[in-house]
Amino acid sequence: MSTPSWFTEAHQASGSSIGFRVEKLLHAEKTPFQTIEIYQTTDWGNLMVIDGCVMLTSRDNFLYHEMMTHPALFTHARAKRVVIIGGGDCGTLREVLKHEEVEKATQVEIDERVTRLAEQYFPELCESNADTRAELKFADGIKYMAEAEAESIDLVIVDSTDPVGPAEGLFNAAFYTSCYKALRHGGILVQQSESPLVHLELIKAMRAAMRTAGFSAVKTLPFPQPCYPTGWWSCTMARKGGELSGFRERGAAAKSFATRYYNAEVHKGALALPEFLREALGE
Amino acid sequence: MSTPSWFTEAHQASGSSIGFRVEKLLHAEKTPFQTIEIYQTTDWGNLMVIDGCVMLTSRDNFLYHEMMTHPALFTHARAKRVVIIGGGDCGTLREVLKHEEVEKATQVEIDERVTRLAEQYFPELCESNADTRAELKFADGIKYMAEAEAESIDLVIVDSTDPVGPAEGLFNAAFYTSCYKALRHGGILVQQSESPLVHLELIKAMRAAMRTAGFSAVKTLPFPQPCYPTGWWSCTMARKGGELSGFRERGAAAKSFATRYYNAEVHKGALALPEFLREALGE
Repeated sequence: MSTPSWFTEAHQASGSSIGFRVEKLLHAEKTPFQTIEIYQTTDWGNLMVIDGCVMLTSRDNFLYHEMMTHPALFTHARAKRVVIIGGGDCGTLREVLKHEEVEKATQVEIDERVTRLAEQYFPELCESNADTRAELKFADGIKYMAEAEAESIDLVIVDSTDPVGPAEGLFNAAFYTSCYKALRHGGILVQQSESPLVHLELIKAMRAAMRTAGFSAVKTLPFPQPCYPTGWWSCTMARKGGELSGFRERGAAAKSFATRYYNAEVHKGALALPEFLREALGE
Repeated sequence: MSTPSWFTEAHQASGSSIGFRVEKLLHAEKTPFQTIEIYQTTDWGNLMVIDGCVMLTSRDNFLYHEMMTHPALFTHARAKRVVIIGGGDCGTLREVLKHEEVEKATQVEIDERVTRLAEQYFPELCESNADTRAELKFADGIKYMAEAEAESIDLVIVDSTDPVGPAEGLFNAAFYTSCYKALRHGGILVQQSESPLVHLELIKAMRAAMRTAGFSAVKTLPFPQPCYPTGWWSCTMARKGGELSGFRERGAAAKSFATRYYNAEVHKGALALPEFLREALGE
């Protein structure tokens, strides 16, 4: 066995870094879209890195995947039709399909290689890919949403990389307008919205662009995520008609499936914004 | 100006690391207890490192200091007498003294140099050191608690380094028994209890030792803390008589002082344990 070394992501924008001790590089390739590396770590299972940025580890991805899905699904009255933009590791798809009310979930990932490598190195995240309700498309999510039939979708989940490179067009009013049109009344858009501590300006800009696109309510939910910069992350929900202050609390408390982070109490807790966020976001 | 480089703490126990981009080393010294370094960072203000472990940065210490103090103080009916074990940077003392009901707060730090360096490099944390209710002692906290008068204290806050080196004796039943004896009925012990994700065994051992010492209720509250391993941290509260399930919610909602993280809703949220913690801790 080789001597362990470290993979470290230096996050220049915040002047902080996060690293993992790795046993070896399992795979590296340059796709038409990006460079993907898979490492075997000593304590975090496998690690996927895209263009030098940590995407996920086996050990802590449950935090992100559960918070990108269950709060939105337990806020919507009955989300039958779900679209995931990005999400190529299939972890978000797996969580969505835990909900019996979901009749069809389409994952629109631009880079098929992300999914193929997830199948190989994160098979537990791909265990619902063969579900008859799942549809895996490898296409441009911006174009997909622009061409989606009006009022045909209940929930759009934007599970993308940071707003640079291929994901840049997923963080602006034009994209949100496509999502708004494609959502049914009461429909929800949820997007990963980076670190509450160091990406506050991005969160504010996202929320403003969502409102510009017509969304009537916007909420940002923080959660821990050790492998992302500052170890503290967030998702932002936007609703087409209606509010976002409550959720189906009894449904969440009586959920028919297992989770590791999410529960009804955690959901309520995530709706409670820390003082500095409340002030910054005007809530 | 020198070229920026990085200070990185490799946390061997979890195989993960956290780093900060630094402009320069401002100070380094070896005290009778430990080695202390102070760096000027590019984005996190000043950074204090003890024996290679990050203690605090100017930018994110509010998370830790507020969560080590306000939940306990808003749980206790009226904490007049507070003792802080460790806490040499004085940030915990500052938060405690925001509470008008506190009549005396004694900080018992073993290493006077920590406080002297905090006065110089983190002056904002030391702004309440001249408060007439504040008492700064430089002594062994284990001995202090062993000799404390029985039933004389309302709140003991253990704001220490990790359970190795000088802080090792702060994480066991003998110390908790001293705290139990020194606390009045209804009194609370609160201690930093490391990462919920990677220090679960330590948290379980702490909680068991607190119960062994006689405490009737124990609660662990998670919170984000970017500069500590995994970016996710916790405090554990133990009560001498009575429960820990509720707190003075109206008092917290109407608090007379400013905070940046803590508020009544955040407090409630911190009491909601994630699913895996609920299972692991038997709650």
